[in-house]
Amino acid sequence: MLLTRRAEFSASHFCRIPSLSEVENREIFGEEANLNGHGHNYIVEVTVEGEPDPVTGIVMDLKEMKRILDREIVEPMDHRFLNLEIPPFQDVIPTTANLAREIWRRLQPFFSASPAMLSRVRLYETADLYVDIVGEDGA
Amino acid sequence: MLLTRRAEFSASHFCRIPSLSEVENREIFGEEANLNGHGHNYIVEVTVEGEPDPVTGIVMDLKEMKRILDREIVEPMDHRFLNLEIPPFQDVIPTTANLAREIWRRLQPFFSASPAMLSRVRLYETADLYVDIVGEDGA
Amino acid sequence: MLLTRRAEFSASHFCRIPSLSEVENREIFGEEANLNGHGHNYIVEVTVEGEPDPVTGIVMDLKEMKRILDREIVEPMDHRFLNLEIPPFQDVIPTTANLAREIWRRLQPFFSASPAMLSRVRLYETADLYVDIVGEDGA
Amino acid sequence: MLLTRRAEFSASHFCRIPSLSEVENREIFGEEANLNGHGHNYIVEVTVEGEPDPVTGIVMDLKEMKRILDREIVEPMDHRFLNLEIPPFQDVIPTTANLAREIWRRLQPFFSASPAMLSRVRLYETADLYVDIVGEDGA
Amino acid sequence: MLLTRRAEFSASHFCRIPSLSEVENREIFGEEANLNGHGHNYIVEVTVEGEPDPVTGIVMDLKEMKRILDREIVEPMDHRFLNLEIPPFQDVIPTTANLAREIWRRLQPFFSASPAMLSRVRLYETADLYVDIVGEDGA
Amino acid sequence: MLLTRRAEFSASHFCRIPSLSEVENREIFGEEANLNGHGHNYIVEVTVEGEPDPVTGIVMDLKEMKRILDREIVEPMDHRFLNLEIPPFQDVIPTTANLAREIWRRLQPFFSASPAMLSRVRLYETADLYVDIVGEDGA
Repeated sequence: MLLTRRAEFSASHFCRIPSLSEVENREIFGEEANLNGHGHNYIVEVTVEGEPDPVTGIVMDLKEMKRILDREIVEPMDHRFLNLEIPPFQDVIPTTANLAREIWRRLQPFFSASPAMLSRVRLYETADLYVDIVGEDGA
Repeated sequence: MLLTRRAEFSASHFCRIPSLSEVENREIFGEEANLNGHGHNYIVEVTVEGEPDPVTGIVMDLKEMKRILDREIVEPMDHRFLNLEIPPFQDVIPTTANLAREIWRRLQPFFSASPAMLSRVRLYETADLYVDIVGEDGA
Repeated sequence: MLLTRRAEFSASHFCRIPSLSEVENREIFGEEANLNGHGHNYIVEVTVEGEPDPVTGIVMDLKEMKRILDREIVEPMDHRFLNLEIPPFQDVIPTTANLAREIWRRLQPFFSASPAMLSRVRLYETADLYVDIVGEDGA
Repeated sequence: MLLTRRAEFSASHFCRIPSLSEVENREIFGEEANLNGHGHNYIVEVTVEGEPDPVTGIVMDLKEMKRILDREIVEPMDHRFLNLEIPPFQDVIPTTANLAREIWRRLQPFFSASPAMLSRVRLYETADLYVDIVGEDGA
Repeated sequence: MLLTRRAEFSASHFCRIPSLSEVENREIFGEEANLNGHGHNYIVEVTVEGEPDPVTGIVMDLKEMKRILDREIVEPMDHRFLNLEIPPFQDVIPTTANLAREIWRRLQPFFSASPAMLSRVRLYETADLYVDIVGEDGA
Repeated sequence: MLLTRRAEFSASHFCRIPSLSEVENREIFGEEANLNGHGHNYIVEVTVEGEPDPVTGIVMDLKEMKRILDREIVEPMDHRFLNLEIPPFQDVIPTTANLAREIWRRLQPFFSASPAMLSRVRLYETADLYVDIVGEDGA
């Protein structure tokens, strides 16, 4: 069975390759290249896989799941400029794909054993654009 | 091809193990343990798998699909207190996981053969929390 | 200027007039009359009116606004059976209209003077049904 | 990794088998059989699979992805009567299933090689009804 | 107090002035002028004003309100081509504004006296575009 | 009659009074004070008031309305850091209230005469928080 919890954080970012010119960066990243940054209300859906406990009917403690998402993702990233404040985005371009990977990397140790294994991270940059990391792809 | 239909019902429930104390139940289930119950607008998405008929282009009759969801799920569960009125929740704790399983169990006989096999039951307890039963997991 | 903040709580209720028969209650309240209760994810939107401070650009402190909504509405009502646990709903029928009025009555003292006056309470019982109390109607 | 982009178009359609009578068509297709047609705000979610480029962190150029969706789907189909104006729906019944297949068929050549392969087409006819074509099912 | 109920119907329409040329119609109505029509999932929100009954706490019977919306609006208009099938749209252009007015005109007799007076009709053509008729504007 | 169109832009901002200390700014603005900025997907709903033309049934040309919103609001503000790039936010704190006022100020000249007068600007910072400027309040 899959259990999914949604969280939200507001952050800003830009997407640029420092060694390229302004023109080249605009060609690759469009308006995302603006060095001043811009922002999003990111919505993240975290899915774990497990079986409900035969006695409690619970896949995993929902309060604990919320605590992990808040501590590992929302608190460090909310109201932040990703490129300046959140490692590894000084060196890694915080595209939606790379940000989803970083979220997977941060959560995976806490959902790596029974009762609940990390199964999917979905990250919405806007309502019309999202990425999914499923299963082993997060490695 | 997958075909999904969404339905909604409003019900109340609580989550408690009768043999445990109030304190122990609160530790496991948090506020869900309140013996008076509380409620949700549950949203259920039912997905069947099948191929569109080569003549009609229809995977399965949508009016029939709606009739089944209404008769098996919405009518019996809407405006009910699950623990008191809906079997097996006198004896089984109606967590979201267990409720999704019961919905799978009730629907499966009606979507167990061609043209359309039950493929997924997704149950939202709130907009931020849902479970999925996929494929054989429902057994 | 109007400033609106949304909050959510899950509660159960029923709608019955104790002196009437089961049949009469069903006629007036339909399935809402089920004595066991049923539940909703209520969404409340609270609107205050005020002018942004000329220095800070703030109508009112959003953290304070959230604290008031949490303390006065969400914490007491979330995961509760309104008829049994939340005054005055032992004696008053918790229809959506009466629940919105009670929310207005509880919030009004905290938004009754500059900088921000309570202007509207909107309460969604489901996505398709809501009530609004506007201005003096709340009295 | 999966990357999904959402687009929307408004179109009308009807579902009928020309060789059948009015009564037979109504039996199969219900109100969808109305020869004058009726309409929907179709929402399509297109998912491609690929890996983020190790330098740019981009799965595929989002502006290019949008250009393809607009040119192949939204521009030809938006504000159209599918049965009369959009091949092959003079001869093929534009059920949601068949329309999703046609969208897959139109998009597949543009997402058939690295860096991004077409992985899923989801088509919402209404908020409560959608179909998915996943992986090779689109063939 | 205001009470709002939402309903939905799928219909098709076009917007043209018969005495004008194709070019002139395209200039005024853009793609809406396509003579074959196109469609929408229209969402209508109907708001009535009234006071909750002091005994029942009900502004008006919600089942009765739903019956009126279904009988007067959803049943006649759902799955229809407005220009061809729904008076007065053979002679009146079914823009969102005119369609909202017709909905107001049809509902007004049923909400014209105590306990509940028609107060607003909101009509969404898409999620990004809607009109409101408020109070006497509907006349 | 009221006609509303929705638009969206992604921007970043921070809220600080330069003459105050870090501690004082945090006290007033909380995490919004982070000097690096953070971001939102702002959603703006622009409402104009007017009567449908008796011949065309149109309140105002929707393509023209979209052109104005794009040119005056979305194009200059999308993918920008408001404090650094968008006047007057070098000197004015871009709270949601002040940003809504600036949007009103920019749009008002284009909707200041028949057929359509600016009636309301609603600005969502998140799904749970929005401000409205109504009627003359925008002055």
